Amino acid sequence: MSERIYASYWLETGDDPRRAADVIAGEQSSGTFIALPNETPELKQRSGARVERLEVLETVDKPSLPGGMPSDVYHRCALQISWPLENLGPSLPNLMSTIAGNLFELRQVSGLRITDLQLPASFARAYQGPAFGIDGTRKLAGVTTGPLIGTIIKPSVGLSVEQTAQQVRELVAGAIDFIKDDELQADGSFCPFDERVTAVMRVVNEAAQRSGRKAMVAFNLTGDLDQMKRRHDHVLAQGGTCVMVCLNSVGIVGLQELRRHSQLPIHAHRAGWGYLSRSPALGWDYGPWQKIWRLAGADHLHVNGLRNKFSEADESVIAAAKAVLAPVMPEAAMPAMPVFSSGQTGLQAEDTYRALGTTDLIHTAGGGIFGHPAGVSAGVEALREAWVAAVNQIPLARHAATSSALRQAMEFWR
Amino acid sequence: MSERIYASYWLETGDDPRRAADVIAGEQSSGTFIALPNETPELKQRSGARVERLEVLETVDKPSLPGGMPSDVYHRCALQISWPLENLGPSLPNLMSTIAGNLFELRQVSGLRITDLQLPASFARAYQGPAFGIDGTRKLAGVTTGPLIGTIIKPSVGLSVEQTAQQVRELVAGAIDFIKDDELQADGSFCPFDERVTAVMRVVNEAAQRSGRKAMVAFNLTGDLDQMKRRHDHVLAQGGTCVMVCLNSVGIVGLQELRRHSQLPIHAHRAGWGYLSRSPALGWDYGPWQKIWRLAGADHLHVNGLRNKFSEADESVIAAAKAVLAPVMPEAAMPAMPVFSSGQTGLQAEDTYRALGTTDLIHTAGGGIFGHPAGVSAGVEALREAWVAAVNQIPLARHAATSSALRQAMEFWR
Repeated sequence: MSERIYASYWLETGDDPRRAADVIAGEQSSGTFIALPNETPELKQRSGARVERLEVLETVDKPSLPGGMPSDVYHRCALQISWPLENLGPSLPNLMSTIAGNLFELRQVSGLRITDLQLPASFARAYQGPAFGIDGTRKLAGVTTGPLIGTIIKPSVGLSVEQTAQQVRELVAGAIDFIKDDELQADGSFCPFDERVTAVMRVVNEAAQRSGRKAMVAFNLTGDLDQMKRRHDHVLAQGGTCVMVCLNSVGIVGLQELRRHSQLPIHAHRAGWGYLSRSPALGWDYGPWQKIWRLAGADHLHVNGLRNKFSEADESVIAAAKAVLAPVMPEAAMPAMPVFSSGQTGLQAEDTYRALGTTDLIHTAGGGIFGHPAGVSAGVEALREAWVAAVNQIPLARHAATSSALRQAMEFWR
Repeated sequence: MSERIYASYWLETGDDPRRAADVIAGEQSSGTFIALPNETPELKQRSGARVERLEVLETVDKPSLPGGMPSDVYHRCALQISWPLENLGPSLPNLMSTIAGNLFELRQVSGLRITDLQLPASFARAYQGPAFGIDGTRKLAGVTTGPLIGTIIKPSVGLSVEQTAQQVRELVAGAIDFIKDDELQADGSFCPFDERVTAVMRVVNEAAQRSGRKAMVAFNLTGDLDQMKRRHDHVLAQGGTCVMVCLNSVGIVGLQELRRHSQLPIHAHRAGWGYLSRSPALGWDYGPWQKIWRLAGADHLHVNGLRNKFSEADESVIAAAKAVLAPVMPEAAMPAMPVFSSGQTGLQAEDTYRALGTTDLIHTAGGGIFGHPAGVSAGVEALREAWVAAVNQIPLARHAATSSALRQAMEFWR
C-alpha cells in the first residue's frame, strides 16, 4: 500500500459540509470546478485526495471570513484529508502547495486552518532534520542540565558594533548561556554583520578562555543565500557556535540550503508568524507548521512565552512548545529546542516546567535579567535559581532564602 | 539624507491610535516593551522607525481579531511607517522581517494588513527583477500582440506522462500560446518531471517545426534547490521556454536562487495566497507582496480572474493585475505579466481589457477551451477572437458573426 500524507483542518463552510470537504479534496488533487471526462474512476482512486474524517463541531449563523458562498448557516468541522505520496513525492515545497495551496480561497470555505500534519517516513529519508537539536546544543553551550538561560541584544537595532560587544561583555561576565541578535539586526551599514561577529566573538572567546565555557551567540544571518553562507563561514571562523535565521523571510529553500551548508546549530525565528496565525479562522496552527521547518533543519524554534507581551494565549504557547518537543513522526524524532521569550522572568519558570516536564528549552529574558539591581550576573543567577526551584518543586519564595540574587529579583519581577 | 523604506498598513487597535502606531514603530526598530536606558535620543533618531502618517478611518465596537487588549472602541486607521535603509540594507529577506515581522502579534493590534510598500532605489541595484518580463515572454512565445491564450493541464494530478503529452498534442494542434502544469503537479512517481518534460517537449517541438511557433509550457519545477536547478536544465535541454514555481512553497531565497540560475522565464504561482490574505483584517494586500517577488525575479504572476470560482472579488483581482503591471519603483519598472485564471472564458475578455487597457497578460482557460464543441482548436480561436473584439471595442455578439468558433463558444460560455 502506498504511503499517504494526512492533514487535519478546522473548516467552516456555508455549503453542505460533505460537499465542501469533497471540493477541497478535489481541488487539491485530481478534481476541479467542473467534472472532467478524463478524471476516470481509476485516476481518482489512484490520485484523488480522500476525506478521512469529517465531524461537524458546531454551527454559526455568520461566516468568519468574507467572500464565501452566502448561507443561513455555517458548519464548523474537524476535517482530515489524505493524499497518496506519489502525487508529489517526499518534497517539502510541494507538500506546501498540496496541503496549503489554493484551498483557502475556495468559495465553499469561510474559515480554514491547518491543525495537524502526519507525514510518511519517506520525508524523514528525504530530509535530515536538525543537525544538532537538543543534545548538540547542550554540548556546544556547555549546559548539561537545566534550561539555557538566554537573552537578546537590545535595542534591537541601532547599537554600533562596539556597543553591541560591550553589551555582550557584561552578559558573558554574568555567565549567561545564550545570547541572540534581534530579528531586525542583520547586516545594516551601521552595525555590519562581519564586524559585529568579530567584535562579539572576541569578547566571547576571551571569556570562554577564562571560564572554560563558551556562551552560545545566535547571530542573525538572514539574507540572500550567498550572504547567509558567507556569514555562516565568518561566524564559524570566529569561533561562534550558532546562527539564527528568520524562517518566513528566507522560506523553506532558504532553510534547507542553510542546513546543508551549516556546521552550527540553526536558531529559527518565526518573525511574521502573526500573519499566518492571528485569525483563528485562517492559516496555521504551530504544530503542523513547525514540523515542516524541523524536517528542513531548524534546531531551535521560537514559541513565545507564558504571560507574554504579545496577543498569544498561554495554552497556545504550551501547545507550540510541546509540538516542538514531540517527535516529527514515529520513525524520526528530530527533536528541536523550544525558545521561550517575550516578557519572561523567573516567575514563569515554575508554570513552564510544570506544563512541559522538561528543561530542554532556551529561556530568554531581557528586562528580567538587565533590570536586576545587582547587575547582569545576578540577573542570570536569579533566573537560573528560579529554574532550580521549579525543577525541585520548591516554592520560589522559599528557594529565595538560599539565593540573594533570586531574592532581589523577586522584587522587580512582576 | 539616507534612503528610507515606507510601508503602509490598515491598522485596527483598541489602544490610543497614536500610541499603537508608536508601539509598532518601536517594536520594529529600536524600541521594545519597556524603556531602555541605552535607547538614547540619538540612537532613536538614527535607527527608529517613524510614523509618517496616521489617519483614523472609522471606529468599531468589536475587534476583528481576538487576543488584543480589551477596549470599548477600536480605531481603524491608515498608517504609514518608514525605516532608514541602513537598519537592514537592501535585503529582501530582512525587509520581510522588518515590515512583516512580530508586529501582527502585538496586543495593541486587533487588525493589521500591509497595503503598500515603497522601496528605495538600492533594492533595484541589489536585485535584478524579472529576466524576461513582458517583452521577453512575448518574444519566446511568438505572440507580438494580444494576450497569450493559455490553459492548464487537467486533471491537476493523476495523468500519466503519455496522457499528459496527448493533452498537449491536442493543445498545440489548436495553436495555443501557453500551457501550464497545475501547481500540484511536480515530480510524483506516477508522472515524473523529467519524463513528462521530455514527452511534452517532443510534442511541442514537433508542432513548432510545422507551425514555426513554439507554445510556451510552464513546467512546475517547485522543489528543493538542487532539484529545481536540475529540472530547469532538463527543460532547457529539451527546448522548453518556461519554468513554473510556487512562491510560498519555496520562499524568497528559493526564487532568488532560481532567478540566478534560470535561462528561462519564471512563471510564479501564488498557491497559499489565501492564508496570507483571506482575512480582510490580517496579512497582505497583493500590491506590496508582488513587488517583493518581482524584485526577486518573477516574470509572470498569478492574479486570479474576473468572476472567478474562488472567493476573491473582481476589484481585488483588477487591483492585483494593475499592481503587477505598474513599476516596482520609479527607478526600475521591472514589469511582469499578470496571469488570469479560474473559471475564465472569452466572456471576461472585454471587462478585463477595459479595466487594464492592455493585452500584456496571460489569459488561461480550461473548460472555456476544452469544452468547445468543435474541439480545442476552435476553443483557442474563440478566446483569441473574444480578445480581438475587446480590443477593438466590438460587442462580442457582433464580432461572433465573423467567427464560427466564437459563435459556437458563446453557446457554452456562460
